[in-house]
Amino acid sequence: MIESDTVFAIVGLGVLGGSYIQALSKMGYKCIGIDIDEEAVQYAMKNHWIAAGGTDSSLVQKADIIVSCLYPHVFVQWVKENQKYFKAGALLSDVTGIKREIIRDINAELREDVEFIACHPMAGKEFKGIQYADAARFANANFIIVPTAENTPEAIASAHQLAEILGFTKISQLTAAEHDRMIGFLSQLTHVIAVSLMNVSDNTHLVDYTGDSFRDLTRIAKINEDMWPELFELNKDNLIREINEFSQELLRFRDLLAENDTEGMKEKMIQSTERRKKFDKS
Amino acid sequence: MIESDTVFAIVGLGVLGGSYIQALSKMGYKCIGIDIDEEAVQYAMKNHWIAAGGTDSSLVQKADIIVSCLYPHVFVQWVKENQKYFKAGALLSDVTGIKREIIRDINAELREDVEFIACHPMAGKEFKGIQYADAARFANANFIIVPTAENTPEAIASAHQLAEILGFTKISQLTAAEHDRMIGFLSQLTHVIAVSLMNVSDNTHLVDYTGDSFRDLTRIAKINEDMWPELFELNKDNLIREINEFSQELLRFRDLLAENDTEGMKEKMIQSTERRKKFDKS
Repeated sequence: MIESDTVFAIVGLGVLGGSYIQALSKMGYKCIGIDIDEEAVQYAMKNHWIAAGGTDSSLVQKADIIVSCLYPHVFVQWVKENQKYFKAGALLSDVTGIKREIIRDINAELREDVEFIACHPMAGKEFKGIQYADAARFANANFIIVPTAENTPEAIASAHQLAEILGFTKISQLTAAEHDRMIGFLSQLTHVIAVSLMNVSDNTHLVDYTGDSFRDLTRIAKINEDMWPELFELNKDNLIREINEFSQELLRFRDLLAENDTEGMKEKMIQSTERRKKFDKS
Repeated sequence: MIESDTVFAIVGLGVLGGSYIQALSKMGYKCIGIDIDEEAVQYAMKNHWIAAGGTDSSLVQKADIIVSCLYPHVFVQWVKENQKYFKAGALLSDVTGIKREIIRDINAELREDVEFIACHPMAGKEFKGIQYADAARFANANFIIVPTAENTPEAIASAHQLAEILGFTKISQLTAAEHDRMIGFLSQLTHVIAVSLMNVSDNTHLVDYTGDSFRDLTRIAKINEDMWPELFELNKDNLIREINEFSQELLRFRDLLAENDTEGMKEKMIQSTERRKKFDKS
């Protein structure tokens, strides 16, 4: 469990890593910050978010809990190269947006005396870099713990405790399969739709006529192109199925329109209105 | 032109009609309100938005400017039945969301001594009814005047003046073809996407995991099912083309993913990010 003297190492000081050290330091925990970018480390130092930090991964050796805020393939590579520095009995966690493959790959590599508990704080941002770190966003976001049958109750409890320390109020557990299916629909499909809507043709000449509907639908078309293709590939089965099903639903609507099936379109709208109401914030 | 003693008749007291009389009365103009629903008229009376009103369309006879805030087919039918009451030289306008067919149909019916100037205030709302009237929304919305070769410069100038009185600051002119093409993409396609995303399967069990992205993309899936199918049918050529092109773009993205074409997906994301930046509000 997390005690008042538990030491954290956060590896990768981007938007999420930065927000983690911001929240943890505010709550009085000692943090070590590691990033290949010296400037990100300096930024964290200047803000008093870390007690120690640098570009050298051996700094991780003093940490009781290590959280990777790296992109998926970098995460696996980093563990391979640096787990020799991990303290015996350390707990490893992450923020990766897909879970089945990362859990399999990390557990295949990880030392026997270190436990990996997979987590996904759903508090991403379209901007890159520690300067956009803002732990205040955690309050309204979901923190999902994704345990496997191998995880100890202690590790799951620690992940829960970490989420609370970070300021998350919505904390839940899913299996890796449930998580990846949910993410494929709610997050990945929506990003593909927004990106495709901007790309279908150059409609930037329409900017003067654009209202909130179009802006809302395309906000997430501003997207981190270094991270998302990798996340998509690691959830390919789910995402391709979601794109296919959504595309078929679109074409069903088109066919109702082509056939002047007013009643059919009405039914679709009544159903979408009813369902969407359940997603209104209370 | 609109003078201080110009009398307006607003026909159809829903969200838009209600907002029109609210804004016009606030600016000191005399308004007559007509609706088949006596309660909507009473609501307008109680708020001092109209000087006279009722369910009887002959009330329109004292108006210099008549604005239909009716659904398209009701608008055409109403003009057929009630233009005998129109004052000679009256100006007729509207708020219809599609333009080619409505302009053709109204002009085919309209008396020679009355001029129709088509307008589209892009300030709709997902809710129905005068109780949602709120002219404050006009300030940030687009008012589009859609003149034909038959319109007089005076009528176009009056429409411009009306938009200013209502509080619109973004006022522009388009041809009916330009208007319907723009609306097919920016407004109609986006509504079809939102409706289809809610309908693709019952994902309401995911509400606990839903973040802003999904909520933003589906906000307009709450939709007035009495109005939109009709608007879609009146712009069928444009909307079907937009659905087809968008669907093809979606499937191109799916194919890049299926082929693990990381670079191809990156390029799509760089393009969507660049284009979307142009739509950021300044």
